[in-house]
Amino acid sequence: MLSQRQRREIARLRERKGREDSRRFVVEGDKIVRESLADGWPVVALYATRAWLDALTPESRAAIPSCTEISSQELRSLSLQPTPQGVMAVLECRIHPLNWNEVLGDLTLGLAEVQDPGNFGTLLRSAAWFGVRHILASPGCVDATHPKVLQASMGAFLRVRVHTVDLETALAEARRRGVQSYATEPRGTSLFDLPLARNGLFLFGNESRGLPVELARCASQSVGVPSWSHAGYGIDSLNVAAAAAVVCAEVRRRAAALRENHGSQSVQ
Amino acid sequence: MLSQRQRREIARLRERKGREDSRRFVVEGDKIVRESLADGWPVVALYATRAWLDALTPESRAAIPSCTEISSQELRSLSLQPTPQGVMAVLECRIHPLNWNEVLGDLTLGLAEVQDPGNFGTLLRSAAWFGVRHILASPGCVDATHPKVLQASMGAFLRVRVHTVDLETALAEARRRGVQSYATEPRGTSLFDLPLARNGLFLFGNESRGLPVELARCASQSVGVPSWSHAGYGIDSLNVAAAAAVVCAEVRRRAAALRENHGSQSVQ
Repeated sequence: MLSQRQRREIARLRERKGREDSRRFVVEGDKIVRESLADGWPVVALYATRAWLDALTPESRAAIPSCTEISSQELRSLSLQPTPQGVMAVLECRIHPLNWNEVLGDLTLGLAEVQDPGNFGTLLRSAAWFGVRHILASPGCVDATHPKVLQASMGAFLRVRVHTVDLETALAEARRRGVQSYATEPRGTSLFDLPLARNGLFLFGNESRGLPVELARCASQSVGVPSWSHAGYGIDSLNVAAAAAVVCAEVRRRAAALRENHGSQSVQ
Repeated sequence: MLSQRQRREIARLRERKGREDSRRFVVEGDKIVRESLADGWPVVALYATRAWLDALTPESRAAIPSCTEISSQELRSLSLQPTPQGVMAVLECRIHPLNWNEVLGDLTLGLAEVQDPGNFGTLLRSAAWFGVRHILASPGCVDATHPKVLQASMGAFLRVRVHTVDLETALAEARRRGVQSYATEPRGTSLFDLPLARNGLFLFGNESRGLPVELARCASQSVGVPSWSHAGYGIDSLNVAAAAAVVCAEVRRRAAALRENHGSQSVQ
């Protein structure tokens, strides 16, 4: 049974300010809560139906400071999902120290004011799929613990670290380390015609405004996913999350092809 | 000034049934309405502010059966967008004859029960970007004229023809013509390790259930965008629109590389 105080806390965590003040956020659904527990992510409170709690091991349950049994009806009244799956949890935000050597040692995405939570979540999901461990997000991006970001990310928040940082700083760090940076723009040089660093920093811009000019200018290269549209097709750009998936796939494809070539050379 | 009848018609077109019964749909925003007019798409009615109408050429205005001046306030009350851009229009659905030779003569996407309107719209947008002219949608897909599909497609509905069709029929047609078909699945053979037909039919499945097994079995190949995630990363799949963008980019990249190689060979 849910107390008024608990209800209020969850309502507060639906707002960005509430999440930032308390450094907590809410996740929903069986898979994501189980993965958070398995991952050792700090779970502050858990709200679940009897059936869900019964399936939890005593050890897992003991590790959660506050575990509340609620009815399906209560869960429906709290949930943002059309068909809630038995459980929701309040998690503590983790502070990830920003180690530039690590972040710029592999393929990394920098997001400048990406504001649609669906896009941001899909970007996180693609990043996790392609083994990208860090995302640099400008302070103007949507909050990475926004419920719709978490939903679209399909659990990728457990895998990919989002660092809020000025992207100018990130570009300066990349320059200092001799790391290539790429401003992705619809009319940039074709991704497929450029040499691509395995540990490049790829910048993606806002859904309507794209990358700020002064930021794009500071990158080593301007790059784009080329269009094959016929004359007059009039599509201005790819969706930012679609473009990022194509970029990640191409960087990883080349690295794998290179490894394969080296492999066969050493055999011959 | 808007009449009650007009208000009711627009409200009716917000529902799938209303659109299907009348074979009409609503688009919003300056860019998309202008492009629809320029494209010669049948515009049945147009609702716009004085400022927007004043900027319209007399020829364009004469071509629209019903043109109604409305206030910004009326527009806001009709619009689904947070900041409406002066205009909305009721368009007639176009009937596109399904010519299998044409559809299966180039890269084509087949969507099996893709239900999220944002995904469907993003798929349309990517298709247009990569010059894909036809999408085959199973009857269980979200309606291609759903407002959120149109919004995410960024005008791609003008460029890409969506045919509602049983995908089993499409696969049979592909087989009959010797056209390769590909069931995209998270654990399919790597896209990057397979020969890819330039005119393949690529099937993509529902957001949670993926492709129906019996459908996937009828395709020539099972193919997937490989994951570079580290052990235990636990991301089950890419978002369907992200996966489709990677597939389209790779098919087009190879075709271009092939052309280039042929070109340089003939020069040498």
